[in-house]
Amino acid sequence: MAVLCRPAVAVPEHVITVEETLEHARRVHAHHPQLPLALRLISNTGVRKRHLIRPISETLQHPGFEVRNRIYEEQAKLRVPAVVSRALANSGLRAEDIDLLVYVSCTGFMMPSMTSWLINSMGFRHDTRQLPIAQLGCAAGGAAINRAHDFCTAYPDLNALIVACEFCSLCYQPDDHDIGSLLSNGLFGDAVAAAVVRGSGGSGVLLERNAAAMIPDTEDWISYQVKATGFHFRLDKRVPTTMEPLAPALRALADRHRWDVAGLDFYIIHAGGPRILDDLTKFLGVPPVAFRYSRATLTEYGNIASGVVLDALLRMFDEGSVPDRARGLIAGFGPGISAEMAVGSWVSGPEPTIVRPRGEQVAVARPLGGR
Amino acid sequence: MAVLCRPAVAVPEHVITVEETLEHARRVHAHHPQLPLALRLISNTGVRKRHLIRPISETLQHPGFEVRNRIYEEQAKLRVPAVVSRALANSGLRAEDIDLLVYVSCTGFMMPSMTSWLINSMGFRHDTRQLPIAQLGCAAGGAAINRAHDFCTAYPDLNALIVACEFCSLCYQPDDHDIGSLLSNGLFGDAVAAAVVRGSGGSGVLLERNAAAMIPDTEDWISYQVKATGFHFRLDKRVPTTMEPLAPALRALADRHRWDVAGLDFYIIHAGGPRILDDLTKFLGVPPVAFRYSRATLTEYGNIASGVVLDALLRMFDEGSVPDRARGLIAGFGPGISAEMAVGSWVSGPEPTIVRPRGEQVAVARPLGGR
Repeated sequence: MAVLCRPAVAVPEHVITVEETLEHARRVHAHHPQLPLALRLISNTGVRKRHLIRPISETLQHPGFEVRNRIYEEQAKLRVPAVVSRALANSGLRAEDIDLLVYVSCTGFMMPSMTSWLINSMGFRHDTRQLPIAQLGCAAGGAAINRAHDFCTAYPDLNALIVACEFCSLCYQPDDHDIGSLLSNGLFGDAVAAAVVRGSGGSGVLLERNAAAMIPDTEDWISYQVKATGFHFRLDKRVPTTMEPLAPALRALADRHRWDVAGLDFYIIHAGGPRILDDLTKFLGVPPVAFRYSRATLTEYGNIASGVVLDALLRMFDEGSVPDRARGLIAGFGPGISAEMAVGSWVSGPEPTIVRPRGEQVAVARPLGGR
Repeated sequence: MAVLCRPAVAVPEHVITVEETLEHARRVHAHHPQLPLALRLISNTGVRKRHLIRPISETLQHPGFEVRNRIYEEQAKLRVPAVVSRALANSGLRAEDIDLLVYVSCTGFMMPSMTSWLINSMGFRHDTRQLPIAQLGCAAGGAAINRAHDFCTAYPDLNALIVACEFCSLCYQPDDHDIGSLLSNGLFGDAVAAAVVRGSGGSGVLLERNAAAMIPDTEDWISYQVKATGFHFRLDKRVPTTMEPLAPALRALADRHRWDVAGLDFYIIHAGGPRILDDLTKFLGVPPVAFRYSRATLTEYGNIASGVVLDALLRMFDEGSVPDRARGLIAGFGPGISAEMAVGSWVSGPEPTIVRPRGEQVAVARPLGGR
């Protein structure tokens, strides 16, 4: 049985508050006819601050797609390993115990992907399967969990590691002045997240069933225009309305599992924006407090794309109040418009231990720095 | 048990022969100091002709990364559906029977990926799982088969469709004059391939076991430099030597299955270049005739990236001489340097039939046009 273990998350050191974001928007778009609307939309996101890989002055420059991809690679190599190490320690496994490495990221493009570098650099076995996914956007967090779940269902003795590395600030396009871009400039943040899905053993969310859904004919509601200047994020104004058609898919998944979607014990939801959580409250009949983990991610970090679900999950681990067999729902949303959803229940195994090469067992200390 | 069914393949209508390729190279690189070497390398590929989505005069232009991605999207939407329809018919399944859509391509970038468009356009269910993979290069053909195999192992009642859409000619970079680029310009071709992996039933290769392998510290031997002008293919001169370190991984997979890698009945191998097949003859102790399917793909179409293994497999189906329970090996190779490998055996079920909505059973005619 696949268990999604305690994630690890790191956000970069450069912080931008919503007040600073609004100030930049006022300055950069002083003569934009829709500036008041943009400021109102940004204020309404509920994002209080975001973390960026570089200072805001550098973030606002566009050094070209080539340099941006180079920065992506450098920053990923700088920031991913510590998060991966913590995720492994959280699961009680070592790098050599991992059989599938799922790396999701829509904010930089490398071939070979970071999976090859991680295998070479971090002691993963050279027969680790590599599954890099670049085209699922924010839904990739849910997709990574679900594909890892499928893999561990096929091979219950094997384990998967999920990494979500999103440097959304590298997709800032200074020449895009449509209202969707202005809003996005105040919504997205940078983060690295990782978690192990164990085929057997471990504490966390026992993954029981997963499903995907796509809303017909909404392909162009969230998309990248790919240009010489890189990825240009296109956000249709109808996107905030998508929970009405997706809520039935969440309900159907719970129904198939003979669970009442309104009565679950926890909800780990991609907080793309505040409306997602508000609408799910309404359409699923769930009290707002149920979305406190996702809400906190959005407030503290902004929309960190595929990293949201892992960060929200970590917040639930941190709260420490989940009883055994508590039942819950995990869902990522993204371009398509699509959803990747899972239902599962809480299991607490023994404290994770690492089996050292010589057989000596060592309890894993909870990490002091970072989460 | 997952069965990889008869693939469908289509190559575009614009043909360039090796003689024309050499003539273009002589003209475009007339003053290149390594022109004789480039001509010799291209002649030695064994590629007789390649198929391109556009006439050679247009192929040699670079209209910019944005336009190229737009061409990719238009051409994929134009050419993929017919191949998908044939692959479905070959498997006896309909679009609505597919639960996982694996789309691999390293020659164009879209978000959302083609999977969303295919679902909207071709009658796939809107809860089909989407797995687009852009970063595994030529190894993605093997990876797609293996991830579909894993999925059907986890859910034996479900089915996967694999699509490999590679328009390598859209990665031609007129300003790249290194010898690896000159060789690549004479090696790669365009093609679309697709195949169904059925969770149960069907005729073809019963997938029994899969594995991955990566050669340590060879990440930069095959790679993309990502620039404002798009993907720049980088090919190290040591790449042709990689079968020596990868052959033991192929042997180990067969060993774990208690099969002798030298004594199998069929070999479906990514023919990235002629040296791969020559060296596997040597390092696996297999006669050259065993690689006739892969050799034919290379000769007729060039290196069609992730499509090679599906095309070689189709050639084996076409030959029609595989007895039941014949044992074989499938392997894709690509950046990493990595391999995605599988062993399986031939099963011939009844002729594929389609269950019509009203229950009426209809035998599927073999496609007349295309393969």
